[in-house]
Amino acid sequence: MKANPALRFALADLVAAVGGSISGNEKAEISGFAPIERVSPTEAAFVEQPKFLAAAREAKAAVLIVRPRDAAQMEGHQAQALWLHDNPYLAFARASQEIERKRHPRLLQGIHPTAVVSPDAIIHPSANVGAGAVIEGGARIGAGCDIGALSYVGADVTIGDDTQLEARATVHHGCVIGARCILHSGCVIGADGFGLAPDRGAWIKIPQIGRVVMGDDVEIGCNTTIDRGALDDTIIGKGVKLDNLIQIGHNCEIGDHTAVAGCAGIAGSVKIGKHCMIAGAAMIGGHIEICDNVFISGATSVFKSITEPGRYSSTAPLLPHREWEKNTVIQRNLADLRARLRALEKQVGTLADPS
Amino acid sequence: MKANPALRFALADLVAAVGGSISGNEKAEISGFAPIERVSPTEAAFVEQPKFLAAAREAKAAVLIVRPRDAAQMEGHQAQALWLHDNPYLAFARASQEIERKRHPRLLQGIHPTAVVSPDAIIHPSANVGAGAVIEGGARIGAGCDIGALSYVGADVTIGDDTQLEARATVHHGCVIGARCILHSGCVIGADGFGLAPDRGAWIKIPQIGRVVMGDDVEIGCNTTIDRGALDDTIIGKGVKLDNLIQIGHNCEIGDHTAVAGCAGIAGSVKIGKHCMIAGAAMIGGHIEICDNVFISGATSVFKSITEPGRYSSTAPLLPHREWEKNTVIQRNLADLRARLRALEKQVGTLADPS
Amino acid sequence: MKANPALRFALADLVAAVGGSISGNEKAEISGFAPIERVSPTEAAFVEQPKFLAAAREAKAAVLIVRPRDAAQMEGHQAQALWLHDNPYLAFARASQEIERKRHPRLLQGIHPTAVVSPDAIIHPSANVGAGAVIEGGARIGAGCDIGALSYVGADVTIGDDTQLEARATVHHGCVIGARCILHSGCVIGADGFGLAPDRGAWIKIPQIGRVVMGDDVEIGCNTTIDRGALDDTIIGKGVKLDNLIQIGHNCEIGDHTAVAGCAGIAGSVKIGKHCMIAGAAMIGGHIEICDNVFISGATSVFKSITEPGRYSSTAPLLPHREWEKNTVIQRNLADLRARLRALEKQVGTLADPS
Repeated sequence: MKANPALRFALADLVAAVGGSISGNEKAEISGFAPIERVSPTEAAFVEQPKFLAAAREAKAAVLIVRPRDAAQMEGHQAQALWLHDNPYLAFARASQEIERKRHPRLLQGIHPTAVVSPDAIIHPSANVGAGAVIEGGARIGAGCDIGALSYVGADVTIGDDTQLEARATVHHGCVIGARCILHSGCVIGADGFGLAPDRGAWIKIPQIGRVVMGDDVEIGCNTTIDRGALDDTIIGKGVKLDNLIQIGHNCEIGDHTAVAGCAGIAGSVKIGKHCMIAGAAMIGGHIEICDNVFISGATSVFKSITEPGRYSSTAPLLPHREWEKNTVIQRNLADLRARLRALEKQVGTLADPS
Repeated sequence: MKANPALRFALADLVAAVGGSISGNEKAEISGFAPIERVSPTEAAFVEQPKFLAAAREAKAAVLIVRPRDAAQMEGHQAQALWLHDNPYLAFARASQEIERKRHPRLLQGIHPTAVVSPDAIIHPSANVGAGAVIEGGARIGAGCDIGALSYVGADVTIGDDTQLEARATVHHGCVIGARCILHSGCVIGADGFGLAPDRGAWIKIPQIGRVVMGDDVEIGCNTTIDRGALDDTIIGKGVKLDNLIQIGHNCEIGDHTAVAGCAGIAGSVKIGKHCMIAGAAMIGGHIEICDNVFISGATSVFKSITEPGRYSSTAPLLPHREWEKNTVIQRNLADLRARLRALEKQVGTLADPS
Repeated sequence: MKANPALRFALADLVAAVGGSISGNEKAEISGFAPIERVSPTEAAFVEQPKFLAAAREAKAAVLIVRPRDAAQMEGHQAQALWLHDNPYLAFARASQEIERKRHPRLLQGIHPTAVVSPDAIIHPSANVGAGAVIEGGARIGAGCDIGALSYVGADVTIGDDTQLEARATVHHGCVIGARCILHSGCVIGADGFGLAPDRGAWIKIPQIGRVVMGDDVEIGCNTTIDRGALDDTIIGKGVKLDNLIQIGHNCEIGDHTAVAGCAGIAGSVKIGKHCMIAGAAMIGGHIEICDNVFISGATSVFKSITEPGRYSSTAPLLPHREWEKNTVIQRNLADLRARLRALEKQVGTLADPS
């Protein structure tokens, strides 16, 4: 399992797989990637922002990924080769994926003897099921899936090909997970939504009989929770990326390729468009619609629908505590401030025009 | 385990169990519930808000639950029968519970052979214990309990009758869980509170020797955490409903029938009254008391006690990011604004009365 | 496992271990600690704040821990002895630790037969591994460790001596955990960071090949998540204390002895100094530096670096909802308020000096 540090990867192979061109030693090899500030003579680094070009020029790297338009500024660099690519960060991402795939080739390990798999579950012969995992009846696990140790897959769950459940992930009964998804440790997909009817001071539980239906290429962070729908399904579009400790309420619909950062909360029946970015700790109130291409800033709370693309924010300014205390007193009494302003306006109006 | 879609439920039975009366075909049957906008001729739907009455009139449903006072507006409806009930949402909740109970009758499965149950634990013969669950010595599991796969029940825990632990729930040693509770996947009840004494720059852990004591009919969401008390217990009243990803600090007391939505955080030693509603992502600071019947809005932070029932809010307004940037500058300098206002008031006072 | 209530602990032994002196019966014994308001004649209580001295004087306790300078005010107390210590809260913390160690002596239980331990893992003979735990190849578990039931320890993880993983904790491959750490249930250490490169509207995953490296004496709360670094490591300094449901993004560095309360979120590449306190639900944006000795108030969001020690806050004031609604309208239009103020200033200037 340990990474083999002696492995070398040919730059030419990576460029062939990922795109771009080589300037310099076409036979250059790399052992992996490192940040520009500590890259070693066997490693590659990428230069995304022009402000790092100067440091890159001095770096003793094997390979540097730079934009073609930045190549001229790299004159005198110390690398064996430049990898010219329009999007260095993307080239790095894809090349790093190639390298990790070769470094850690997937092994077919099958079903661990301590896993508890219902005889009614259908596990593709190319799937792995880890130690202590539990898979209930009617579940279907696709080709190339890895079901992590101590994971739980409920009855009648469908999991698409090449999807990975990390250790201790949970998918509840009837949910549908796409292909090439990654569900990180501790996430819970398809638990009951928070549906309650008030009855003379007590709360009556409303059975949650919808599912979670998730598209392909979705990634769900650790300990993130996505509730099943009440009557209809909760929908997670393809390519959606959710970070850790996020709550998605029942009957939400998250559009394709939307990304949500850690600690965000999305209440029930929210509809979020495609290609949105919800930054960390943002909170979206229930029954709201957010259109495509919206960016919600960190720690921002949203309690009404957003119909125009763009960026939205709501946080209060950070202040040294004593200033904050004074500021808060004024803020709490803004109505008084406005009333005084109005009174002044009237008084000044009279002064200016006493007629 | 799969729902049998051919099952039909007699309206008359549901009305007998739940209350209300039938107008129309007293022999009507339903296969289940659906939202009004996609209800099918074998299904029922409920009409809670008058604005949906028009849609309900057109809906090709088997049964519609409406308020008696709204029945007149249903003239010309297409359902086999109206179910008249003063609280359609509640009638739906209860009827849906009846249906789900029949659709998924509880099976006595006993202790799964892979569960690890201490010989000193007392498991009622009518309880189920799932695959891979671990139950320590001295634990007592009541009649009709379902302990989910891969759950952990610590030493000397007491769990009341008919309580359900979903897969991967955790209850730590000595805690007391009521009857008919539901503990969802990943929740952790009774871990150590965050009790630390400062000692010359380092933190010394204070052993947490209290428990969590939970009443009957409590529901705890996925990955929610409730810490045990330091010396005294953390108390969760009966009928309390907690959504997902909520933190309840040590020595809190949550009053009966209070509901807390997802991502809320309640610091240590907070006392919350009965019948409160804490909306999503609200944060309650430590050592605060909140009286009965308080509603805290979403994303609101509370740092002082609340002694009057009612609704409280604190969030900052959502703005397009550029407007927010300008707004923030002013907000940060409210003291300046107020000072200028004061100066003007003085100056205008002098102008108006130069004596 | 049950606490033996008949156990008695000699005050003299506790004072010898923890420091301070005895005034009164040097042979006094205690059965444990209790809060001052319900302490019993066999128990001890501590008096941290002078306002509780009056109650302490009346308390029928075996022992009271007070500051030497407060002893005079305890005249007429009813305890067998006063324990004089400069820091009663700390004395209580340490004494309680001593008592709990004796009350619950660690038992050597070895590897539970249902644990799944790779033959390539190295488990110190004095370590315990609980039921159903999974330990992968190359992992090294130090002396005196307790690996809780249903925990997961990935390949090549190193865990220092006397560290405790509570039930259902997870440490992913390659991470390094210090000595005497406590990792609570449901925490996930070393899952992938949220690293994505945009590619024509979709997100490309960046392999996360750094680790989490954690110092000694760290405590990590339930369901808290700490992501592994992208290329470099995520660093958790020694003595750091993290409460429940906290997210620490990839490549963060948390300085020694910093404490973070529940529901806080720290985005990627944040560097926090030593001896900081981050209160509950605070949110720190990405790529920020916070110097030593900073206190961030509860629910405060931080989006720029902090270079001066001290306390910082950002929350909006709590208001009854109707007042909040009015206040929000004004706050949303602060620019208008300021413009009117400017216009008035001009007008009044002209009135005062019409030249």
